[in-house]
Amino acid sequence: MVDYIADYYKNIENFPVLSQVQPGYLLSSLPQTAPARPEPFEVILGDVSKYIFPGMTHWLHPKFFAFFPATISSAAFVGDMLCNAFNSVGFNWLASPASTELEMVVMDWLASMLKLPTSFMFSGTGGGVIHGTTSEAILCTLVAARNRAMAATNVDNPVSKLVVYASDQTHSTFAKACKMIGIPPKNIRLIPTTVDSKFALPPCHFRKCIKADVAAGLVPLYLCVTVGTTSTAAIDPLEELLDIAGDYDIWVHVDAAYAGSACICPEFRYHLNGVDRVDSLSIAPHKWLLTYLDCCCLWMKNPSLVVKALGTNPEYLKNEPSESNSVVDYKDWQIGTGRRFKSLRLWFVLRTYGITNLQNHIRSDIGMARYFESLVRSDPRFEIVAPPNFALVCFRFNPTSEFKSIKIESLNRELLDRINSTGQVYMTHTIASGVYMLRFAVGTTLTEKRHVVAAWKVIEKEAQVISTTLKLNT
Amino acid sequence: MVDYIADYYKNIENFPVLSQVQPGYLLSSLPQTAPARPEPFEVILGDVSKYIFPGMTHWLHPKFFAFFPATISSAAFVGDMLCNAFNSVGFNWLASPASTELEMVVMDWLASMLKLPTSFMFSGTGGGVIHGTTSEAILCTLVAARNRAMAATNVDNPVSKLVVYASDQTHSTFAKACKMIGIPPKNIRLIPTTVDSKFALPPCHFRKCIKADVAAGLVPLYLCVTVGTTSTAAIDPLEELLDIAGDYDIWVHVDAAYAGSACICPEFRYHLNGVDRVDSLSIAPHKWLLTYLDCCCLWMKNPSLVVKALGTNPEYLKNEPSESNSVVDYKDWQIGTGRRFKSLRLWFVLRTYGITNLQNHIRSDIGMARYFESLVRSDPRFEIVAPPNFALVCFRFNPTSEFKSIKIESLNRELLDRINSTGQVYMTHTIASGVYMLRFAVGTTLTEKRHVVAAWKVIEKEAQVISTTLKLNT
Repeated sequence: MVDYIADYYKNIENFPVLSQVQPGYLLSSLPQTAPARPEPFEVILGDVSKYIFPGMTHWLHPKFFAFFPATISSAAFVGDMLCNAFNSVGFNWLASPASTELEMVVMDWLASMLKLPTSFMFSGTGGGVIHGTTSEAILCTLVAARNRAMAATNVDNPVSKLVVYASDQTHSTFAKACKMIGIPPKNIRLIPTTVDSKFALPPCHFRKCIKADVAAGLVPLYLCVTVGTTSTAAIDPLEELLDIAGDYDIWVHVDAAYAGSACICPEFRYHLNGVDRVDSLSIAPHKWLLTYLDCCCLWMKNPSLVVKALGTNPEYLKNEPSESNSVVDYKDWQIGTGRRFKSLRLWFVLRTYGITNLQNHIRSDIGMARYFESLVRSDPRFEIVAPPNFALVCFRFNPTSEFKSIKIESLNRELLDRINSTGQVYMTHTIASGVYMLRFAVGTTLTEKRHVVAAWKVIEKEAQVISTTLKLNT
Repeated sequence: MVDYIADYYKNIENFPVLSQVQPGYLLSSLPQTAPARPEPFEVILGDVSKYIFPGMTHWLHPKFFAFFPATISSAAFVGDMLCNAFNSVGFNWLASPASTELEMVVMDWLASMLKLPTSFMFSGTGGGVIHGTTSEAILCTLVAARNRAMAATNVDNPVSKLVVYASDQTHSTFAKACKMIGIPPKNIRLIPTTVDSKFALPPCHFRKCIKADVAAGLVPLYLCVTVGTTSTAAIDPLEELLDIAGDYDIWVHVDAAYAGSACICPEFRYHLNGVDRVDSLSIAPHKWLLTYLDCCCLWMKNPSLVVKALGTNPEYLKNEPSESNSVVDYKDWQIGTGRRFKSLRLWFVLRTYGITNLQNHIRSDIGMARYFESLVRSDPRFEIVAPPNFALVCFRFNPTSEFKSIKIESLNRELLDRINSTGQVYMTHTIASGVYMLRFAVGTTLTEKRHVVAAWKVIEKEAQVISTTLKLNT
């Protein structure tokens, strides 16, 4: 398998980035039932090449510029091999002391790299936990916030009064989690952003909104502030929002799933300014810190609120250290009971590369994105349409200087289709404040400057084809 | 790393099964911050041996008989290597068509092995998904059930009227999930089991309970039926419970996390009889089907109810196949958005071993448990205290024929402490219907009959020490 994987990486550029198969391609190719008898490893691997590969959208392809990259490393790979080798189930401390304590160590290490205050660290008064996804981090903190708020009110049917806040650019998982815990959809305020607000949550609208809600007898519960939104990597103004939120007893969470990793560089750390005043913060190293899926780090100032909401104490898990309250039982910090030895991957990454090289890795990706931005800016038929933050460039094809009265959105849709159909590059789109734009997210582990250059050539070429057609039609 | 892991398995019997460290052992040994510069692989591996190993409770040790085993295999190991190698993020079909479709194939394969009706299969009218844990499966189906029930009622504050049912032996994650989605704790009915009911949910009590609730104006929402409880592997009588539940519009879920895997053997399949009448069923192959953590399979008769409750449609994920509704987007079947190529491990396991060998693997574990049971029964100072189901034996030391007026519970607590302190064996306890008992769960992948024999010798030896002390004191 090691050889097979090495070959995969060696040949990865020969595969189309975006899979070109049709729905149902695999369902109709594989047998309807599992084999009764063993099949040889070589046959299974052969089927991976024959049936799985055509259906892969290759996230690790160096010309994958879609969504946000999911970065990897050999350090995390071997760390995960070791995690599997142990296959320990660290629901409580005793079931795997090393698993629990290494997670505590690594969460403090990363907190320190992010210059988080000690109020988020085990060495201080808080603590952190590794979840699978940001969704889980948000869900767990929402439940804790809800329970705290409900315990504090005497009104009838209190959950119907709770209101949550975020921008309309906040990840869709936020509203999903709110609905899961029973927040009425009409109480989920997704405050509109605009081009002028740089697609970030405008504090003045938040202030108006929360004031009106309180006046209407509603109870502000939770504010989700995003540092690096999924669409455009917009940055909600944390400090200004906190100045407003501070007047209310509201849980403030910072979702920095993507951009948080960049904050290990001193020059980007200011995006987290104000974090000392929030209740919780989550960052997903599986996006930009080379750890593979799944790895989302959640820090909390008061983990006991989550433990109070999620804690269980069945007889079959009772043990002396847990009863003595001298240990962390991570089952009470998360949705599930069982958990893998999750910290090994991150521990291997932090030690194998060291802080300096991880900072350089972030800077290199951002450098390539800035380079791509300069290419876009150098072509007058293109424009940058969102402030370029971190390693994401949002732009669009806009040849209105050459062609009047064209429909920019459909032109860009066509351009994106053409680009992705080449199989040479994969990019995605978004719409923010009504503006359709193409997203170019740099940073898969194998991406080098030459891949960015090559991608730009594909984009220009396909744009040229569209231009030529437009010319013929006018 | 491959060599390191091979050595680990070679030497695993030399380590104490249960870690003997004290809380804080690792926190005080490791540096307070991540290194600034890279550290060599050998140094990190050296630290694994020096610092991590002493803090491991070795779940794969052949004399680990605690909780339920978490089984592994070389097939799943290489399958997971491949999953990492791809590091694809299959939130929707297009982001990784092979990942989505292989999961559909494998879920149908396993459904077929379990002789589930086609109403749970993609080839029929239902479908399945791989979650990380049973907790997630229960949480997602609970939300779907809640939303369906709330849409169907016109009462004020409907969630306060919803009532859920399970036995007091049901996994603690059930009540936790109910509380997460806002079910009032007072509406969670954990119906008492008894020795007479074999620690299973007594249908007559369920009938009384649900009748009384409906009479009181409450709305039955969800019944969780467990096949193989965590404490004693008790089996709730599914068909009798369904006969009652059928009179109400209630979601019935079967949690067969542990024992479900055994139902691939025709001789154990009857435990799932009635499954054609339930709404959902979950089984965790990471417990007994050799797949490593995390792998919990959830089948639903009407997945669209979950999709309706958990579906999101943000612009940045929009794509043609999803819009056409011709594909499965697994992000809407689970809590999070991102997801690994989860089915590879299970696919490798099913093909590498084939159904026949997997059945034999289950039978071999159950055979060893029956052998252990016979050892217990052969010693008059011991007794079996719960019906021995599957590969679990619940027993206790009860030398009342020799010693009158002893405290059996404290005697068994002492015995368990002694056994686990040897480091040679690790077992856990439970209390069901007030009876304290020792649990002997057979089945880690490396366990052979000789380990069961050796474990029994340790148990007898420690019991003898206690007997001798008792004699001296009388």
